[in-house]
Amino acid sequence: MSDPATRNRSRATADMVASRANVSRVAVSRAFNPHASIKPEKRDLILRVAQELNYTPDMAARSMVTGRSHLVGVIVPDVCSPWESQEIDALTTALQAEGFATLLFKTRTDLSMDETLLTYMKGFNPDSVIAFTENVRPQTLSRVLDRAVPIYVAYPHGEDETGEAPGPLFDRLNVMQRDGIEQAIALMQGYGAKRFAFLAGATHSLATAERERMMHNIMAERGLEPPLRIQGDYTYDTAYRETLNLFRVGEGADAIFSANDVGAFGVIDALRHDLGLRVPQDVKVVGFDDILQSHWKSYNLTTVKIDLTERVQALVRLILRRLKSPSSPSLTETVSTRLVVRGTVG
Amino acid sequence: MSDPATRNRSRATADMVASRANVSRVAVSRAFNPHASIKPEKRDLILRVAQELNYTPDMAARSMVTGRSHLVGVIVPDVCSPWESQEIDALTTALQAEGFATLLFKTRTDLSMDETLLTYMKGFNPDSVIAFTENVRPQTLSRVLDRAVPIYVAYPHGEDETGEAPGPLFDRLNVMQRDGIEQAIALMQGYGAKRFAFLAGATHSLATAERERMMHNIMAERGLEPPLRIQGDYTYDTAYRETLNLFRVGEGADAIFSANDVGAFGVIDALRHDLGLRVPQDVKVVGFDDILQSHWKSYNLTTVKIDLTERVQALVRLILRRLKSPSSPSLTETVSTRLVVRGTVG
Repeated sequence: MSDPATRNRSRATADMVASRANVSRVAVSRAFNPHASIKPEKRDLILRVAQELNYTPDMAARSMVTGRSHLVGVIVPDVCSPWESQEIDALTTALQAEGFATLLFKTRTDLSMDETLLTYMKGFNPDSVIAFTENVRPQTLSRVLDRAVPIYVAYPHGEDETGEAPGPLFDRLNVMQRDGIEQAIALMQGYGAKRFAFLAGATHSLATAERERMMHNIMAERGLEPPLRIQGDYTYDTAYRETLNLFRVGEGADAIFSANDVGAFGVIDALRHDLGLRVPQDVKVVGFDDILQSHWKSYNLTTVKIDLTERVQALVRLILRRLKSPSSPSLTETVSTRLVVRGTVG
Repeated sequence: MSDPATRNRSRATADMVASRANVSRVAVSRAFNPHASIKPEKRDLILRVAQELNYTPDMAARSMVTGRSHLVGVIVPDVCSPWESQEIDALTTALQAEGFATLLFKTRTDLSMDETLLTYMKGFNPDSVIAFTENVRPQTLSRVLDRAVPIYVAYPHGEDETGEAPGPLFDRLNVMQRDGIEQAIALMQGYGAKRFAFLAGATHSLATAERERMMHNIMAERGLEPPLRIQGDYTYDTAYRETLNLFRVGEGADAIFSANDVGAFGVIDALRHDLGLRVPQDVKVVGFDDILQSHWKSYNLTTVKIDLTERVQALVRLILRRLKSPSSPSLTETVSTRLVVRGTVG
């Protein structure tokens, strides 16, 4: 058992550390700020003295003074979906390197985010909040945030849409989906696909709506008939069931483009394990995301990739740019997509 | 664009809300505390007035007064592993319902957690910290936490070990692995398996060491030869490669028990797609965890389940019990395991 008296011993102050290390109070502050420029040997000395004295800058106290919380809120419906968990993992690593901690908030997928959760988030006074418009609208979020300018992941469908929008101030990570989608359709067409189907994601998702719209445009440009539509919800189970319906009740397809990878896995398993069809010989399948599981041999999925590292770096840049210029108009970063070719088309 | 003046308008105080709603200052505080007992209509009134006045309790300010941060730190090496992401997802939901936010910290898997990260975590003054001993030792963690008593997920191997240990104070969630492992071995044995192999997880993992030790004991009790050992690291790719080695270089096996589900997926894919062996006819495979992906048709994995809901409820109970009794000796909650039978044995 540790001694409660030791556990609760009072903390040293920054002044005590400065005095013992024979440096200024400002130097102590800089030593604990990963952004601040300070000589490595000076930082090492200060951190060593701080440890001897049991000094740590208290974020709550510091937040009262600086107005910064060093917290970045991330609003997600599903931490456990592979796509989101991989994003949160990479983002947490990148934010930690910049001195921020990731604060997770779970919401519903259908915009019905409750007010209590928003009020509660506001109380932590995050320096930034990352959200998706399909989960919570900028109007709602801006109303409850005092200081943080939210960052939205957006899926513009043309160059004209990448600029500023009216309404509350928010920054945006624009994901340009066209390149990857065009490459996917061209590859399936090149291998002889004629009857395409699109497996849509959740009803409220803007990402899936934009993928579908773009697919229609590109197919029209290439002289292809519009795709059949399967309503999914980004889950494996729905994709599996709806694929059975498409082939047993409906007219089937020879190429299926899923709005995410997990849905594509459900499609492939339904085709192979229940319908006795071969992938890619009988039906070609393409996913979207390139999650870690996509290269597993049972799937070996051809998919549209939004590079995770690029995406996370762009989000971190947005946070740092905004903290530098709190009153600047809407900031934008852009990432693109490309097709990763594996074994489900060809 | 929103008006910066509006965005930065100063906050109302709790006294202003109390006065306008004609309630006490304490009632306002209770309305914002999900634990506090207060009549629903009174809470609704206070929250409505608070919204009109743009009042939110500031967690930093509150933390300075109460000494509580309403933050629960979770130290994990891999947010994106399915097991951990499902745990974090369920835990975040449960903590939110109790008024806590989840603060994520990423560490390395090999105990080499760096001091800067620990110091940094301390600065946020979490009310509780959840960790695994293979990632950071209680000695290390207790030294840097002022106030929070860490919670460790432990894998005791006998009743004698579930009590208090000497050393720094920590609470524990004991996962009793024996039942599920015994059921798995009995089922494989019942279907005629003779040459068993154990695919171990990461070298430093106590969970896998305990799974292996228990497997040896149970097999000896049942008159079975000790299992072959394959060194894995909980990843799909290593499991895949080492399974090829076991059959191409080594002597093979007719039953493989993997220390986690993702490893079992790698085993199954190597057997079926590269070695031309049938699962379960030629080789039986059992995993551990029962992650969401385990029921996917390409795997349909028989696996040992640690119930996620039970586990998370036990963790939340530990946090609440500890906050109620800060100086109480080590607290314990216990969860058990059981086999979920699907298609990879039989």
